[in-house]
Amino acid sequence: MPVREDELKHLNGMLLQMAGLVETSIRESIKSLTERNSELARKVIEEDHKINTYDVRIDEECIRLLALKQPMGKDLRFITTAMKITTDLERIADNAVNISERALELNKEPLLKPYIDIPRMREIAQGMVRDAIDAFVNEDKRLAMDVIMRDDEVDDLNDIVLKELMFIMTQDPSTVYRAMKISYVSKYLERIADHATNIAEMVVYMVKGKIIRHMAPREIEI
Amino acid sequence: MPVREDELKHLNGMLLQMAGLVETSIRESIKSLTERNSELARKVIEEDHKINTYDVRIDEECIRLLALKQPMGKDLRFITTAMKITTDLERIADNAVNISERALELNKEPLLKPYIDIPRMREIAQGMVRDAIDAFVNEDKRLAMDVIMRDDEVDDLNDIVLKELMFIMTQDPSTVYRAMKISYVSKYLERIADHATNIAEMVVYMVKGKIIRHMAPREIEI
Repeated sequence: MPVREDELKHLNGMLLQMAGLVETSIRESIKSLTERNSELARKVIEEDHKINTYDVRIDEECIRLLALKQPMGKDLRFITTAMKITTDLERIADNAVNISERALELNKEPLLKPYIDIPRMREIAQGMVRDAIDAFVNEDKRLAMDVIMRDDEVDDLNDIVLKELMFIMTQDPSTVYRAMKISYVSKYLERIADHATNIAEMVVYMVKGKIIRHMAPREIEI
Repeated sequence: MPVREDELKHLNGMLLQMAGLVETSIRESIKSLTERNSELARKVIEEDHKINTYDVRIDEECIRLLALKQPMGKDLRFITTAMKITTDLERIADNAVNISERALELNKEPLLKPYIDIPRMREIAQGMVRDAIDAFVNEDKRLAMDVIMRDDEVDDLNDIVLKELMFIMTQDPSTVYRAMKISYVSKYLERIADHATNIAEMVVYMVKGKIIRHMAPREIEI
């Protein structure tokens, strides 16, 4: 039985709502760090359960559609991909929680230095998450490819941040504790971008019916 | 149409083979570090494509079973869980590749100190991966719960390693580069244990039909 248009719309709607919450968590976690707002950090941690609820609901809806509709072909791939995507979204939110936990620790210490590259990484990573989900619901493989290409920018910024932190620690050992915590934040953002890339790779696979997630970007023809 | 016994056996067989390769990658990645064997580190990196091949094959087999058999109930949950588990296994292998990359870098530098807690973390994390997959194929929720409980041990060891490294860096800034690289290795092992925990949570969910992945361990009744 084909999955009805309104059922797919409902599923997409839930995914978009979940992605919206995840985007907010990413933005607020970094804001809690850059603006030294521990109240906001606690809010991100406390509200993570809302995102977990979406994860469970989307999973259950996908199982329901698979059981009742027994979809084939395109619908089948769409639904199984949705089940995988929701796992990635949930783990992205976990990384935002981790960032908030580091913010709580760092906000108690004197500021090491103003954050410049971290907000830039946040902006790119968050945009990748939004576009990866948009690419999924619109089955837009060009947008998905664009997300995949942006991953290098985040990796490069992460390298820059880590090198700078290593330099600071070498110059002044009293900075080690803070510099290590900031390096984790950078790593969490890099991981968020990785999850967005994973989602985008699944979208390209779904649309093209070809698994690209183990190919180098230059091997992939759009 | 029910999925035949031999089809489930075939699927389980592929998962067990994939998990075996992943276990080897974890063990060899840490061995390449502790025994300063860069040849072995390169082997882990080069052979990762074999694990990726399993990821694709298992995914395709699951899609095939869903399309042809249109399974319901238990079989449906088993197959959709297998699709999610293969993603986690593939990412565990990525972490072993990351460890090997750090080993290649660290093996060029003088030894900072003998590795004591890292091999212990490797042993626990690798055991968690093996048991999580065994719990899945045998639908053994007690073993799955046992895996979930062990995650704290790895987290605690990771904290000990990081604290020790911070102390070393503070005492001697010339150690910063190496200490940072070792801290990543510790983080990668922690992440491997997290993936094993995620798999185990999915197994408990599948067996009990109850989502526990957002519950604290003490809330879960076996």
